[in-house]
Amino acid sequence: MTRYKMTMAYDGHLFHGFQVQPDQRTVQGVVEDVLKRMTKGKYVKVEGSGRTDAGVHAMGQVIHFDYPQREIPAERMLPALNSQMPTDIIFTNCEIVDDDFHVRYSAKGKWYRYRCSLDHFVNPFKRFYTGHFPYPLDVAKMQKAASDLIGTHDFTSFAASGGSIEDKVRTIYYVNIQEDKANNEIIFDFIGSGFLYNMVRILVAMLLEIGNGRRPVDDIPRVIAAKNRLEVQGTAHASGLYLYHVFYEDVPAKYRLDLQ
Amino acid sequence: MTRYKMTMAYDGHLFHGFQVQPDQRTVQGVVEDVLKRMTKGKYVKVEGSGRTDAGVHAMGQVIHFDYPQREIPAERMLPALNSQMPTDIIFTNCEIVDDDFHVRYSAKGKWYRYRCSLDHFVNPFKRFYTGHFPYPLDVAKMQKAASDLIGTHDFTSFAASGGSIEDKVRTIYYVNIQEDKANNEIIFDFIGSGFLYNMVRILVAMLLEIGNGRRPVDDIPRVIAAKNRLEVQGTAHASGLYLYHVFYEDVPAKYRLDLQ
Repeated sequence: MTRYKMTMAYDGHLFHGFQVQPDQRTVQGVVEDVLKRMTKGKYVKVEGSGRTDAGVHAMGQVIHFDYPQREIPAERMLPALNSQMPTDIIFTNCEIVDDDFHVRYSAKGKWYRYRCSLDHFVNPFKRFYTGHFPYPLDVAKMQKAASDLIGTHDFTSFAASGGSIEDKVRTIYYVNIQEDKANNEIIFDFIGSGFLYNMVRILVAMLLEIGNGRRPVDDIPRVIAAKNRLEVQGTAHASGLYLYHVFYEDVPAKYRLDLQ
Repeated sequence: MTRYKMTMAYDGHLFHGFQVQPDQRTVQGVVEDVLKRMTKGKYVKVEGSGRTDAGVHAMGQVIHFDYPQREIPAERMLPALNSQMPTDIIFTNCEIVDDDFHVRYSAKGKWYRYRCSLDHFVNPFKRFYTGHFPYPLDVAKMQKAASDLIGTHDFTSFAASGGSIEDKVRTIYYVNIQEDKANNEIIFDFIGSGFLYNMVRILVAMLLEIGNGRRPVDDIPRVIAAKNRLEVQGTAHASGLYLYHVFYEDVPAKYRLDLQ
């Protein structure tokens, strides 16, 4: 038995999310099916660093699994899996890791990106790959407001109901909001110790309200203190969200705005 | 009866091309269905500046149609149609034109773009939107070779069989081949008086052979002179091709390399 850690990208728009569900096409399900073929019928459980919802993408999702048969060198496992993947999944890295490595428990941080198109109409080429906000936005205002997210807080106000996790305390290390003028998009980057269910999409929805002037720029400390999901009504659309990177080493100092 | 000229973009990956076909989802078919609803059942024929094949995209396709009912101002026709379009079609401009305007016969030139990804593997996010060539390429060599395409030639060697057009003489005004390093792509631009069936995709396939060193850089005059489709075996994949712009005014002088 050999434990493999693999990094993958996927276009989420034709998946019902990462996690296996009966009769639905999921990322975990597709990878487990391929591993089952490779092992001639043995079930190999795939563990992900986190679930992504239907329509959410990954540039750097990480999985691990225990391959029950003769060890395959990592540099051969990578093309072996890629050659059997559908075109909306690609593995970009493969390592053999110790048995005490766990893709979820060993993670030290996660990076999510949100792409928001500012096009007047929904751009046909971006409809699966961005959110959409065709209204006035003040990026400097959003960036200013976002600095109030940095640090360790109880993020109950930003967790969708339905999550089963009791402890809603997380640390946000880094938030950056920038215009991509060439593509007429706003790019939101969030790095933190972890994120609650729908938390990034709720944060984006709130920041867009601030950037649009519908919510005061200094509202975030109040919303955090309220610990009430009803404080933020919106949830940005899944199509703009990317699990961008998972950190298994310490998050680099340049992204630790909470320590500055 | 009022003639409308409309410019549109579409993501071609879920269409069986532009032209109406029985039991297939086509761009023309979708637009005609919407016009039929607007006119409460009257058939309104949509004419396109040219057909695009299954999987081919448009940034600037142009259509015309004769609206049989009370004239709707152009600035109202645009949102009226957009509000009923599926998300993979968008109209970007609308004008009321004279009855002697014809989207095909009035065109003075066409601009096609081809995006070719150089990623090692097929990138999940680009699989519907680029061709793919993960081999060494010398862009300067392709650009040098492409200059032999400029001018008026019989392009029989570059026309897929199946086209019904007898006259294979066309004028290519402009070819540009550039690297898009940020996206790891090569962008091919072709502007000409018109293009034969599959001509752009065959030209791209040939230029990639030249850039890869499998065909001499000075081969194009010989291939043109041969007037034999068997001279170029390949056809670049439909997914990378975009009908980028149709000129109804004279093609600007900066794109008339044939006159320099």
